[in-house]
Amino acid sequence: MKLGVIGSGAVGSLFAAHLANLEDVEVWVYDVSEAQVAAINDNGLRLTGVGEVIAHPTATTSARDLPALDFGIVATKGMHTRAAIEATAHAFIKGAVCSVQNGIGNEEVIAEYVPRVIRGTTFPAGRVVSPGVVQWDTAGSTWIGPFEPKPATTEELNELAETLTRAGMHTLALEDARGAQWTKLIFNAASNALCSLTGLAHGRAAQNQDVRWVMDQIIEEGKTVAEALGIEMEKDPAVLLEESIEVALDHKPSMLQDVLAHRSTEIDQLNGGICRFGEEVGVPTPLNRSAWSLVRGLEASWDLEEQ
Amino acid sequence: MKLGVIGSGAVGSLFAAHLANLEDVEVWVYDVSEAQVAAINDNGLRLTGVGEVIAHPTATTSARDLPALDFGIVATKGMHTRAAIEATAHAFIKGAVCSVQNGIGNEEVIAEYVPRVIRGTTFPAGRVVSPGVVQWDTAGSTWIGPFEPKPATTEELNELAETLTRAGMHTLALEDARGAQWTKLIFNAASNALCSLTGLAHGRAAQNQDVRWVMDQIIEEGKTVAEALGIEMEKDPAVLLEESIEVALDHKPSMLQDVLAHRSTEIDQLNGGICRFGEEVGVPTPLNRSAWSLVRGLEASWDLEEQ
Repeated sequence: MKLGVIGSGAVGSLFAAHLANLEDVEVWVYDVSEAQVAAINDNGLRLTGVGEVIAHPTATTSARDLPALDFGIVATKGMHTRAAIEATAHAFIKGAVCSVQNGIGNEEVIAEYVPRVIRGTTFPAGRVVSPGVVQWDTAGSTWIGPFEPKPATTEELNELAETLTRAGMHTLALEDARGAQWTKLIFNAASNALCSLTGLAHGRAAQNQDVRWVMDQIIEEGKTVAEALGIEMEKDPAVLLEESIEVALDHKPSMLQDVLAHRSTEIDQLNGGICRFGEEVGVPTPLNRSAWSLVRGLEASWDLEEQ
Repeated sequence: MKLGVIGSGAVGSLFAAHLANLEDVEVWVYDVSEAQVAAINDNGLRLTGVGEVIAHPTATTSARDLPALDFGIVATKGMHTRAAIEATAHAFIKGAVCSVQNGIGNEEVIAEYVPRVIRGTTFPAGRVVSPGVVQWDTAGSTWIGPFEPKPATTEELNELAETLTRAGMHTLALEDARGAQWTKLIFNAASNALCSLTGLAHGRAAQNQDVRWVMDQIIEEGKTVAEALGIEMEKDPAVLLEESIEVALDHKPSMLQDVLAHRSTEIDQLNGGICRFGEEVGVPTPLNRSAWSLVRGLEASWDLEEQ
C-alpha cells in the first residue's frame, strides 16, 4: 500500500510514524514546512509520551514529488484543507482520501478535488515539540466511514481500518461515521473554544464550575443540532467530557496551543460548524455562536497588535 | 465641606484631584497602597490627558486618621468595597457615602456600615500611570441619587452634585439614579467582559462584527432585566455603545487592564450582577452568564499558573 499523510502536525505525525513502521506500507508525508520536512528526512519522525516510536517516512514540501497513492490521510488544520488537497489531489486520482481533522466541513472541501472520500474522526492528540519530534499526549481510537456524496468503497474502508489498527492506531470502519464525528466535534467545541478563551487546560476547565456551565450549554446545543440532522451520537459528549477530566487534566487542547502562539484557530470548523448546521436545521446555538465570535475576536486582536 | 475619597485608582483620583482644588473643600484620600499614598502626599495628585490637573489632597493608608467627614466617595474595585467601607465607616457616622464604582451591588454593601448612601454612576475613565499620576482618557458626566433602602437627603444630593460640578466633574442629582446606573452597567457588561476575553480595545471590539453580536445579546438581556425591575434607562446602552466607538477606539477598559495584569476583575459586579438580578425577576441571561463564567475561568487560570 502506498499512502500519503497530508500535514505533519501532531496528528499527522502520529499517523505517519505508526504507518511507516509497517513493512507493507510506503508512507509519504507532505507538509509546507521546510524545517519539518528536513527533520523527518534527516532524523526520522519521533513520538514520545504515550508510546515511543521512531519511523522513517519520506517527507516532501513539493506536492509533485508524490507518486500515485492508494490512500491519503489529511491532517492539516481546517483552514489549510483547501490549499493542501488542491496541491496534492493528482496523487489520489485512483485513491481514497480520509480526513482525520477536527471539526466539520473538511470532507466537503476534499470531495471537490478527489473522487472518493472517507469521513474520519480520531482521538489521539499531542503537540509538536520541535521539527520531527511530537509529544504524544493521549491515546484513543479512530472511526472512519464513507463521505456520503462521494464515498470510498467498503473494501477501501476496511483495508484502511485494518492497516491502521495493525500499525497500532485502533480504527473502526463504520457504515455511518457521522455519529463519531459529531461526538468529537461537540466535545471539542466545548473544550477547545473555552480553554482558548480562559487559558485553562482541558481538565482544569471542565473542573471549573463556571466554565463547566458554558461547556454544558455548548454540548446541549450541539446535541440538539445533531439530533435534528438525524445523527445518532457514537457517545454522549457530556459523558466523554466527564471521563476525560483526569486523563487530560493538564492537556492544552490544540486550539489553546494555537492561541498561545497567536496562530489562526479551527474555531470556524468547530463551534462555527455547529452554528452553520444549526442554522440549516433551525436550531438556535447562541452559546456556540458566542464562543465562535469571541475566539474570532481574539484572533482579530493579534492582527491589530501586529499592524 | 470635608470629603473622603476611598480608593485612589483612576476614578478615585479623578474625583479627588478635581475636588481638592476647590478652596471650600477639604479632601482626604484613603488607599491601602503605601506607594500611592506617599506619592500623593509628596508630589500631589496629577491628571494628564483630557485635562491637566495637579492637586494636593491629604492621603493616608490608616483609616483611623480620617476625621469626621460630610461625604464619602467610594471608588475601589467592587471586590474591595466591603473591606474599604468597614475600615472607614467611623468617619461617616454623620455623613453620606456615594459609590461611583462600576456595576451593581456596591451600595448594598456600603449600606451595611453607614447610615446614608448615595447611588452613583460616573463615566470619566482613565488609568494609573505611576503612583500619583493618572492618565485621564475619557470625560463624561456623573449621576447621583438616593440608595432607596438607606437614602441620603435631597439636600445632601444637591450639595454633592453642585460641589462636583463646580469642581469640573459635571454631576446630576436625580430622584432615581437606577436608570443611569443600569445604563452604564449594561454598557460595561458588554464592553469590559468581551474586551477582557478577546484582548481587543473598546472601540475595536465594538467594530468587530463577531464580537459585536455577543455585545448586542448581552445588552438585550440586560435591558430585559432592567425592564422587569421597573427601571427606566437613562439612555439605550446600544446607542451609547455605538457613540463610544470613535471616542474610545483604542481605550482599554479597566477590566482588560486588570486581566493583562492578572488582577481580579469586577465581573461579579457587572455581568454577574445582571445574572443575579435576572434570576430574581425570572429573566434568562445566558450570554451574560457565559461572559461572567469565562472571565472567572480566566481568573482561575492565573491562580493555577501561580501555584
